[in-house]
Amino acid sequence: MLRIALAQINPVVGDLAGNARLIRAAVGEAASQGAQLVLVPEMALTGYPIEDLALRPSFQDAARQALDDLARELGAHELAAFPEVTVIVGCLDVLDADDQPMAGRPRRAPVNAAAVITRGLVTARYIKHHLPNYGVFDEARYFVPGNEPLLINVAGHRVMVAICEDLWQEGGPVTWARELGCDLLAVLNASPYERDKDDVRLALCQTRALEANCALAYANIVGGQDELVFDGDSLVVSSDGTLLARAPQFESAILLAELGGLPSTIAPRRDDVAEVYSALVCGLRDYVDKNGFASVLIGLSGGIDSALVAALAVDAFGPQRVFGIAMPSRYSSAHSVADAFDLAARTGLSIREVSIAPMFNAYMDALDLSGLAEENLQARIRGTTLMGVSNAEGHLVLATGNKSEISVGYSTIYGDAVGGYAPIKDVPKTLVWELARWRNDEATRQGQTPPIPPNSIDKPPSAELRPDQLDADSLPDYEVLDRLLEAYVTGDRSARDLVVAGFDQAMVERILRLTDLAEYKRRQYPPGTKITLRAFGRDRRLPITNRWHESG
Amino acid sequence: MLRIALAQINPVVGDLAGNARLIRAAVGEAASQGAQLVLVPEMALTGYPIEDLALRPSFQDAARQALDDLARELGAHELAAFPEVTVIVGCLDVLDADDQPMAGRPRRAPVNAAAVITRGLVTARYIKHHLPNYGVFDEARYFVPGNEPLLINVAGHRVMVAICEDLWQEGGPVTWARELGCDLLAVLNASPYERDKDDVRLALCQTRALEANCALAYANIVGGQDELVFDGDSLVVSSDGTLLARAPQFESAILLAELGGLPSTIAPRRDDVAEVYSALVCGLRDYVDKNGFASVLIGLSGGIDSALVAALAVDAFGPQRVFGIAMPSRYSSAHSVADAFDLAARTGLSIREVSIAPMFNAYMDALDLSGLAEENLQARIRGTTLMGVSNAEGHLVLATGNKSEISVGYSTIYGDAVGGYAPIKDVPKTLVWELARWRNDEATRQGQTPPIPPNSIDKPPSAELRPDQLDADSLPDYEVLDRLLEAYVTGDRSARDLVVAGFDQAMVERILRLTDLAEYKRRQYPPGTKITLRAFGRDRRLPITNRWHESG
Repeated sequence: MLRIALAQINPVVGDLAGNARLIRAAVGEAASQGAQLVLVPEMALTGYPIEDLALRPSFQDAARQALDDLARELGAHELAAFPEVTVIVGCLDVLDADDQPMAGRPRRAPVNAAAVITRGLVTARYIKHHLPNYGVFDEARYFVPGNEPLLINVAGHRVMVAICEDLWQEGGPVTWARELGCDLLAVLNASPYERDKDDVRLALCQTRALEANCALAYANIVGGQDELVFDGDSLVVSSDGTLLARAPQFESAILLAELGGLPSTIAPRRDDVAEVYSALVCGLRDYVDKNGFASVLIGLSGGIDSALVAALAVDAFGPQRVFGIAMPSRYSSAHSVADAFDLAARTGLSIREVSIAPMFNAYMDALDLSGLAEENLQARIRGTTLMGVSNAEGHLVLATGNKSEISVGYSTIYGDAVGGYAPIKDVPKTLVWELARWRNDEATRQGQTPPIPPNSIDKPPSAELRPDQLDADSLPDYEVLDRLLEAYVTGDRSARDLVVAGFDQAMVERILRLTDLAEYKRRQYPPGTKITLRAFGRDRRLPITNRWHESG
Repeated sequence: MLRIALAQINPVVGDLAGNARLIRAAVGEAASQGAQLVLVPEMALTGYPIEDLALRPSFQDAARQALDDLARELGAHELAAFPEVTVIVGCLDVLDADDQPMAGRPRRAPVNAAAVITRGLVTARYIKHHLPNYGVFDEARYFVPGNEPLLINVAGHRVMVAICEDLWQEGGPVTWARELGCDLLAVLNASPYERDKDDVRLALCQTRALEANCALAYANIVGGQDELVFDGDSLVVSSDGTLLARAPQFESAILLAELGGLPSTIAPRRDDVAEVYSALVCGLRDYVDKNGFASVLIGLSGGIDSALVAALAVDAFGPQRVFGIAMPSRYSSAHSVADAFDLAARTGLSIREVSIAPMFNAYMDALDLSGLAEENLQARIRGTTLMGVSNAEGHLVLATGNKSEISVGYSTIYGDAVGGYAPIKDVPKTLVWELARWRNDEATRQGQTPPIPPNSIDKPPSAELRPDQLDADSLPDYEVLDRLLEAYVTGDRSARDLVVAGFDQAMVERILRLTDLAEYKRRQYPPGTKITLRAFGRDRRLPITNRWHESG
């Protein structure tokens, strides 16, 4: 029997000292609970992804030093009473000129590594074999791949080490583990959340355990890093695929399991919508907290998008750290300010009202604007107002755009698009409604006041930038639009495919064209939490200058 | 003797039909001038870089079809009277499942290819061997590499084909050309401009010709594509490294050369500053024209940055397409509006004046702003004014920030940072002055009015957002700042290195910290022409959430 612990921690990119403290605390706790092997996830010591920091010599040197320091400190303190405990830590390492596996690389080659720490020393090193270079991943830019297995002995058990993508690809550690007759495949991960990925992940771990013919431990980080949120979901399966232990999502945890023993902690899964909501709270909370902001500021229109963002913020920070401004104009409906104040009353956030009329009149006197220019002006006065209050009071402004409108460019650059973070930028409008309804139902189930005004959920969506304007005047029904965008943005389906699938040809061509043309706006949009298979940002990289247009 | 032509054309990303027309015209012209071999640069048929379009099946299919159509049309028209002419065209191709060279790749694998066209048919194909995946390049994301030489016979001459990075790396086509005793190494390129790169390029071509022991033809595209500008600079060297022909930079051209003949056209090089100026004009012109804008709009402060941007715009588009707005505030110096109007008089651009005072007063009455919030407010009123006029009249707004201030975050997000394009975002402040002086001197040399008011060049730089404000109050002297930023941003030097190199420690730590903290602003900054070895944007990718800080 081998007692293992998976340290599901929340590191911060670049915070070598802080991450080392997290690791030491987790290892100390695990050892005191009898763990013989502690797995600390992929690049937990540096945070992930570190992007071009991987290429900076001063950071490389500091990361190596931090690893040596960590080993020594563990040996001297947390593991002083537990000298037999083995720790495997994900870290950045550097191959020097004389141990580079590939020709034509720079003299110092960074590697995505796992360091084995025993008795205060780094005693072995594994280098990630499969480097992901698709979607949000650019590991071919940063790292050279390793080609050698690392098999270590822990209390008489044969343990094969792997890192993240090694588990998803054929060959490498999974094959080596089977060929070398291992007892455990220990996988360190920094695997970002995507909707439904946890189901895929468990199934994959079970399949790979069978293929490797040994138990498998999957240790993942948790927490937000810019556009990514890591859900944790660390788990252990036996060699026959039985789930032995599973950590919760979006929370730090130390998961203990006994190989050859009975199943232990198996945290329940959340429902799909609840899981997305948790991902959004976690991504928002960590962006704000890790960047040192004390509070957030939201323009509250009375509509569903800003209401959902406010509910997420209140769940992330508590109402004392959330500030809202209602900024009515001549085209605002009678209920919009009332709905915003209802939201504030329900959640406890601070709200104030600033009429944009004086600024609007000043601009209209100075400039000759009408139509779209006049609509955008209102949005930009609101943006400037939010930024002014942000500068004066220190809040981080949150942009409230959803994925559907960001897709088709139904947003005003430097207007409603202002903000340091955009919590729901990867959430299609139909899912915005689902999340709002779920959150209110959840409150009701728990005997609390539903945070989101029912009127914000039920009224027809409108930007309220001209009289009686409705989204439905310019866009298809959101149910249709979101299915179409999912097929185009995530599925890379052609216009012809979409027409064959039953969408109206003129609508397909118009929506695809709008989506292509809005690329320039998306480049200047704030970052926000990725929850879908393909988010805007580093996940989907298209030129702005681009004359390719799909036709049906 | 072999007569070759290099088609230095300016393709547009995604414009398969338009690019095919450019190629047909160039091939027709080359053939009529007696060329036996015509080289059309890397991915000229699709434009470069196409980014994730490479992964979209509908675009892959269209690109393959466009190649077949191009071959057929050339055979039927431009080359009907020249059946012996061989054309080599850079294109996107796709390997089907049964001819994939690598395991674990998706079923359809895009390749960066060179197609050989003879007698109306694609008769051979080369696949790029070395895929660049550093700096601005992400080719490992898009393409699978080829591993086989393509040696073709053109009028009795043995021609080895290569694509761009193949020339910069050891092994592959250079080696194959020597081993197989070739007469010509034909290299198709999409090689972006960087300051001083043309010198490196010629030296490299000469070195490689000697290594390959054959003549070398280097065909490059020209023109702007989002952040990149391609300078052309196509050239031919003999096997002993003698320069036989060289095309101009930043202009479309058909370069003819005779292998075994005497040197022909050798376009003179521009001086360094003149070359940068041309790069900026070319990048700006193509962004605006390829995106279909009729005119540009610039906020004219009377300062050097906006004056240089205006001069570039007038050189790119003529004064009829350039519009400026002077937007004085209570803190504007007496000369700022006068300098802006002087600029307009010198260049012929259209100028108007809009006082921001009424809007400023309206905001100040509605909000309680002071200090930095009040400074930013002025910049944001100007941004909103520019965007309002842009929306009303259809101009593309140009942002006027330079690299020095974008580095340290000395700019107001949604204020002076608004715009669709930022022509000088990669130009350090000291180079801004050099460019302005060079442009004025050039006008004087040509007997024209210098476009930039001498007062804009000579006065001390100031944002004029509070009384008597000067850049020098908050920043080191720009000569010092630019040397420091060059070492940090481009050179990745550590704080300690910089202190050892003689920079003041407190200044180093402060400037590096400001640069790191401004990452969030740069993410939302408009694209602009890359001219240095490392531009902000895809060239330098750093996390926003990042606790790594250099200390000296």
